[in-house]
Amino acid sequence: MRHCNACGHAVEFRVPDGDHLPRHICPHCGHIQYINPKVVVGVIPEHADGRVLMCRRNIEPRLGLWTFPAGYMEASETTAQGAAREAMEEAQVDVHVDGLLMVINVPYVSQVYMIYRGTMRGDHFGPTFESSEVRLMREDEIPWDDIAFPTIWNGLRQFFDDRAKGRYEVHSLDLAFRRKPPLRDEVAGDAATP
Amino acid sequence: MRHCNACGHAVEFRVPDGDHLPRHICPHCGHIQYINPKVVVGVIPEHADGRVLMCRRNIEPRLGLWTFPAGYMEASETTAQGAAREAMEEAQVDVHVDGLLMVINVPYVSQVYMIYRGTMRGDHFGPTFESSEVRLMREDEIPWDDIAFPTIWNGLRQFFDDRAKGRYEVHSLDLAFRRKPPLRDEVAGDAATP
Ligand SMILES: [Zn+2]
Ligand SMILES: [Zn+2]
Repeated sequence: MRHCNACGHAVEFRVPDGDHLPRHICPHCGHIQYINPKVVVGVIPEHADGRVLMCRRNIEPRLGLWTFPAGYMEASETTAQGAAREAMEEAQVDVHVDGLLMVINVPYVSQVYMIYRGTMRGDHFGPTFESSEVRLMREDEIPWDDIAFPTIWNGLRQFFDDRAKGRYEVHSLDLAFRRKPPLRDEVAGDAATP
Repeated sequence: MRHCNACGHAVEFRVPDGDHLPRHICPHCGHIQYINPKVVVGVIPEHADGRVLMCRRNIEPRLGLWTFPAGYMEASETTAQGAAREAMEEAQVDVHVDGLLMVINVPYVSQVYMIYRGTMRGDHFGPTFESSEVRLMREDEIPWDDIAFPTIWNGLRQFFDDRAKGRYEVHSLDLAFRRKPPLRDEVAGDAATP
């Protein structure tokens, strides 16, 4: 962030009067630009036969690895609407969003994941610009070593664990830090403080 | 948003190639600026005697009306850390954040509220720049007609209802639309689709 949204002048980075953190401030017009955490909304689409719908990423980052539908929440939608939208965009699937499964904080990238359980309406799904391959998988078919992000890994794990218990709850998880290297170790669950 | 964050050039508002919504695009450097929903984090601080800590707003909007500590989540923190930070900033209170109580979507202002239950550590609290008055209140002392926002009203109501039942759950609520006029009617709960 180098220029002011309001007037285009170069911004400064300092603590405004009465604030406690440095912000991008415009010395020309006084406008302050805040950097806000981002909400990622996702849903685990469950077929009537118990399989879940997984997408193989056709875009960077983590091209070729697997995820359930998830992406940045848009303005003017709810978290559940956003999750359903991502399912349609990434997997061509119409999902009824059932309930919140997990809130995962990822402070090292300023993200909050809101992961929902969902039920597929009908049988239609397919590949998209973002997903080279979209497949229904049983739990024992999930490629646990090739999951795109630790958030996705934890959401899936929690889903199957809750389903086995026959009782869904809303879980909270904070991912404490980014593990590296080797980068791929991240997909095995990452370091977490429950 | 009129100028590019990256180069300061005037931006255009149109649908980028491969996208589905209009965005602010810089015709000079190609930078796309997304408008992201904001996360509001809050906590209901409970004293050992069962009273909860309420703040009278010393700032606009809703100057003079009552709330529990809540505000915009910052970069690089978790939702629970943000809620505890707001409690310290707005009420000088040290709160242990216990668990998530409620997720409230407010799509008409592109906000997601994450409201936590919390336990006061010790007895210290007091007024701040943002709060002209900070008071412990029993349920029957809550000024239900003078609550600052419908999100705060619903969070408090849910807290007392769950406590009366002896069982806390994580609740989801979507506030469907902004009611107006009269503006003050909003504080009586607003129109909600549970
Ligand atoms: Zn400016
Ligand atoms: Zn530019």
